[in-house]
Amino acid sequence: MTTYSNRTDLTLEAQELLVRGEPDKKDFDGIITHTRREGKLNITKVEVTNDNGAAKIGKSVGTYVTIEMGNSELKSNEDYVHARSAIATELSALIPNIENKTVLIIGLGNWNVTPDALGPKVVSKLAITRHILEHFPDEREKNLNPVCAIAPGVLGITGIETAEIIKGVADRVKPDFIIAIDALASMRTERVNKTILLCDTGISPGSGVGNKRKELSKNTLGVPVYAIGVPTVVDAITMANETIEAIINALKEEVKTSENIYSFMKDIDPQDKQELISKVFNPGDENMIVTPRGIDEAITIMSKLIADSLNVFIHRHNYSYLQQAYLM
Amino acid sequence: MTTYSNRTDLTLEAQELLVRGEPDKKDFDGIITHTRREGKLNITKVEVTNDNGAAKIGKSVGTYVTIEMGNSELKSNEDYVHARSAIATELSALIPNIENKTVLIIGLGNWNVTPDALGPKVVSKLAITRHILEHFPDEREKNLNPVCAIAPGVLGITGIETAEIIKGVADRVKPDFIIAIDALASMRTERVNKTILLCDTGISPGSGVGNKRKELSKNTLGVPVYAIGVPTVVDAITMANETIEAIINALKEEVKTSENIYSFMKDIDPQDKQELISKVFNPGDENMIVTPRGIDEAITIMSKLIADSLNVFIHRHNYSYLQQAYLM
Amino acid sequence: MTTYSNRTDLTLEAQELLVRGEPDKKDFDGIITHTRREGKLNITKVEVTNDNGAAKIGKSVGTYVTIEMGNSELKSNEDYVHARSAIATELSALIPNIENKTVLIIGLGNWNVTPDALGPKVVSKLAITRHILEHFPDEREKNLNPVCAIAPGVLGITGIETAEIIKGVADRVKPDFIIAIDALASMRTERVNKTILLCDTGISPGSGVGNKRKELSKNTLGVPVYAIGVPTVVDAITMANETIEAIINALKEEVKTSENIYSFMKDIDPQDKQELISKVFNPGDENMIVTPRGIDEAITIMSKLIADSLNVFIHRHNYSYLQQAYLM
Amino acid sequence: MTTYSNRTDLTLEAQELLVRGEPDKKDFDGIITHTRREGKLNITKVEVTNDNGAAKIGKSVGTYVTIEMGNSELKSNEDYVHARSAIATELSALIPNIENKTVLIIGLGNWNVTPDALGPKVVSKLAITRHILEHFPDEREKNLNPVCAIAPGVLGITGIETAEIIKGVADRVKPDFIIAIDALASMRTERVNKTILLCDTGISPGSGVGNKRKELSKNTLGVPVYAIGVPTVVDAITMANETIEAIINALKEEVKTSENIYSFMKDIDPQDKQELISKVFNPGDENMIVTPRGIDEAITIMSKLIADSLNVFIHRHNYSYLQQAYLM
Repeated sequence: MTTYSNRTDLTLEAQELLVRGEPDKKDFDGIITHTRREGKLNITKVEVTNDNGAAKIGKSVGTYVTIEMGNSELKSNEDYVHARSAIATELSALIPNIENKTVLIIGLGNWNVTPDALGPKVVSKLAITRHILEHFPDEREKNLNPVCAIAPGVLGITGIETAEIIKGVADRVKPDFIIAIDALASMRTERVNKTILLCDTGISPGSGVGNKRKELSKNTLGVPVYAIGVPTVVDAITMANETIEAIINALKEEVKTSENIYSFMKDIDPQDKQELISKVFNPGDENMIVTPRGIDEAITIMSKLIADSLNVFIHRHNYSYLQQAYLM
Repeated sequence: MTTYSNRTDLTLEAQELLVRGEPDKKDFDGIITHTRREGKLNITKVEVTNDNGAAKIGKSVGTYVTIEMGNSELKSNEDYVHARSAIATELSALIPNIENKTVLIIGLGNWNVTPDALGPKVVSKLAITRHILEHFPDEREKNLNPVCAIAPGVLGITGIETAEIIKGVADRVKPDFIIAIDALASMRTERVNKTILLCDTGISPGSGVGNKRKELSKNTLGVPVYAIGVPTVVDAITMANETIEAIINALKEEVKTSENIYSFMKDIDPQDKQELISKVFNPGDENMIVTPRGIDEAITIMSKLIADSLNVFIHRHNYSYLQQAYLM
Repeated sequence: MTTYSNRTDLTLEAQELLVRGEPDKKDFDGIITHTRREGKLNITKVEVTNDNGAAKIGKSVGTYVTIEMGNSELKSNEDYVHARSAIATELSALIPNIENKTVLIIGLGNWNVTPDALGPKVVSKLAITRHILEHFPDEREKNLNPVCAIAPGVLGITGIETAEIIKGVADRVKPDFIIAIDALASMRTERVNKTILLCDTGISPGSGVGNKRKELSKNTLGVPVYAIGVPTVVDAITMANETIEAIINALKEEVKTSENIYSFMKDIDPQDKQELISKVFNPGDENMIVTPRGIDEAITIMSKLIADSLNVFIHRHNYSYLQQAYLM
Repeated sequence: MTTYSNRTDLTLEAQELLVRGEPDKKDFDGIITHTRREGKLNITKVEVTNDNGAAKIGKSVGTYVTIEMGNSELKSNEDYVHARSAIATELSALIPNIENKTVLIIGLGNWNVTPDALGPKVVSKLAITRHILEHFPDEREKNLNPVCAIAPGVLGITGIETAEIIKGVADRVKPDFIIAIDALASMRTERVNKTILLCDTGISPGSGVGNKRKELSKNTLGVPVYAIGVPTVVDAITMANETIEAIINALKEEVKTSENIYSFMKDIDPQDKQELISKVFNPGDENMIVTPRGIDEAITIMSKLIADSLNVFIHRHNYSYLQQAYLM
């Protein structure tokens, strides 16, 4: 029997699943969660501090920051600027001592598939400075960091593992650190295009969409690899799973009084649930995604937000000069 | 309480819902259904013959043809050509006596929203001849029909009801008949981008996506209005509805032996189902759609198929000249 | 013999040609020219005040404002905001008493051809309010004008004269005035994508690219028609003409001492020049344009600038509310 | 004084310039030219056979094939198929013994700049097989070659020399040979988008647009590097140069009878011509290009033609299987 499991790339959601599985427990060994509110933003930091926690939550040891923006951020200039500076501040906390360091930014994903085009779109909006600093020594006094970037494509359109391309490029560019940008899958529609994930553990391109490719991390690339992600879809099967889960919970509530039915309900998950789901889905449904109708516009705005945040973060020592001298 | 009903623009699915509601009944007064297989294609004709049938199925009196293409049509040239000629043949049966008649083709939908861009994309791939026949009288001997086309946009980007724009244009162009192309919503993921609907009753733009705009029909425009549609999405709420329906059916099967539970299950639909669903959905979810990951490419292929089919159908008396003289 | 004449849509350039033709004359009856500098902007107003002037300059009686932005405007936010408010101010001077009036904005041009896509791109970036004011009466108290817009396409892709489509739509929408946006042809490469033309005399779509279509004006549409244009190309034949002109002038300078040659040089223009040019050009060259390599990006920026300027101009009584309530 | 020289990437045109410079000479040591007609196609092979010829023509020792298609190829299916098979045949003559060899295809150029997007567009239309052959061993029996591809972007958007990226990728992929695709500059408008250049000497990306980047060749990459190019623009300065050249030639003809003038005319080129040109051009004109108005569509068609030709060439031993099994 195929297993139809919930697909999420958000550590926050992995942690929520843990809590859902063991509702009476608040703390897990090796997993520390802090949440704070900042203006309209909800910022959650999940720290996975040891192998115990890593095994439990299914994520590497490291720090994961989730910034949830609610509905506001896309509409007013004020909210946009606030989000941009919050993201830049969180990046500064996550990535220390960047002065004079060369950064290679990787825009993962397929530019021909709208919800997967986030990474390449971010790359196209960055202030790229490495070649200018190389050819115009005077610019070096301006305190800008050398930034270079690449959108390597995906296995299906290159025939080459993305990790291989990046290794090849990194071997020649020799960056001090790498930031990879990718579109992710969430479990919840209300997070789609309204949430940004930052982490210091690298990323496995394509992991959110089913296939685990070779990971991008300090292990494989030799320098620190940070990742920025935005959930742009919910997997259709995950959505159905969540629907069923919610329905069963609702049914349980209603039938609590009737002992027999309640015990039956308790029995049906989780194995039988898989069988139920396998009856609902059609062949090809594993490629179905749930996404807002306005996805094209949302991707445009989110990619601009991330590119701007990166520009502010990386060149914060001389951002005003950057704005004046470079077309962004 | 908000009603979360299944959204479908396919008359075939409306008819399937009828049958599902009354599984013991095969025939309904005023609704005649024929199905036939042609190569890899499944062709269903639903004729709504009187007001009784129209009220029952929720569609106007008229003829509705659904061509289902399975998985094959997008991949080989042979299947493509077969589908194209099948569509042209069905159009010929539906739209009689077109010789020398002027046709206005309307590409409904929003070109900035991928799954809604089908109509405008079809328009951009048609062989447009009306202005050429007007300015170069010699061309008139070539037995081509005058074809003109417009993509009027959607209310949200024009501020004008689509039906108003089309009336204004039709008043001046005075076509003999109109063909409107639109992206539709289906109830079933396996029909998305793999099904073509033809009908002779006109269309209400946007009806498939929630808002009923003024209809495009002989009533409102004064000339026959035909429609061609392709389901490009499933509404996320419809998908959840269908998931719940399937789950409840599956549960019923399993619990048949247990009388008490079965009777409970029978009771929960349909009103309670609405309440269950309202617990599952988040604000904003009414704009969520289910669509294949490769939607951008699928829309490109389907719009080409429809444009080619229209070119073959309209200019069938001299298609070889068309191919040679016009860039399509 | 075909005539290879200079093609320009800029009244400023038509006036420059006049001056070039009669270098000793500064004033022409019926043509008044004012130039002023505002920050980095060069603003020239040409008023054609009578039929005499109109015949001389080949433009209708009316007011033509040209805003030249040099190289600066595309790069810094400060210059962008300055240009936007200058354009809005010039629009206010040109279009009086707009309060509570309904405006129909027309985005002329072909969205599939980059340098011709300016008009449709502006339309896609406007704040469209007409349908909202109609359906939500409360919004009417916000002092916003009803704005609607359409991108009618071009004859080659619709088969319908653009003027016919607009007449049809205007008959139904009944706007108080119309603003048409179009991409133009300039004579000079340094004006391309760096100049904005405003006028109160309407426009003939396509006139700048060779074919004179039926004009859009108060005469044909019954309400005042204003136009906003940006030169996005130089016609290749015009560029060659200008090159030859410049070369002949340069040669004249050099050979002034040699009387015989000078007199020959004086003789060769203008009829012989046509013959010379006809020897230089190849069939198909009438479709060749001169454009900057970065035209795609330039069109994106200029269309945003014009849409923003229109938003500021039309809704200036409550722009802050517009910014907060509408996604632009 | 800046030198405004004619910019061409076509060896055919370099050879034409040689002949123009020494009109009485037909043969040059180390340069062999064959021309033949095949249907509507004009095929010219220029072989540079020794260093003498290489220095003379400014191209490396190697074979250069130019296929000129006139006006026909874009309009009828028949001409398209003929062109495709002619290109595949010329590729087979140029690139020997490809059986079982791995090919890396490089799509040079900037996907955000229409006339420079040819390479990336070709890459997006190729049948990519390398990863499939790796993961599905059964496919290996189908006699398909492993094909992989990358569109590395341009220095301005990556900050990394294109040659560096390709070296990095080639070091890991270890292809048997490389084919690079690039948009070129021609000297003549009638060749734009209607000519294909093939060669076995590699390519210097960006050389046609002004900046000489590190070359892609067997020297730098360790395996044979072939190139396919299409001229998509004429440099505006080159066009002006050619206009002046033609004008001077035309003037010479007319003034032959007048001895004095003729001798003056003979004197003005070539140094003075540079001065003349420097008077005609404006700052920024070095970024101006001449291109057909319909460039967007032409690039789409030419990139499809090249991708199809490569698919036929590389998989000619089992092209029918490829068509059936892979979506292209």
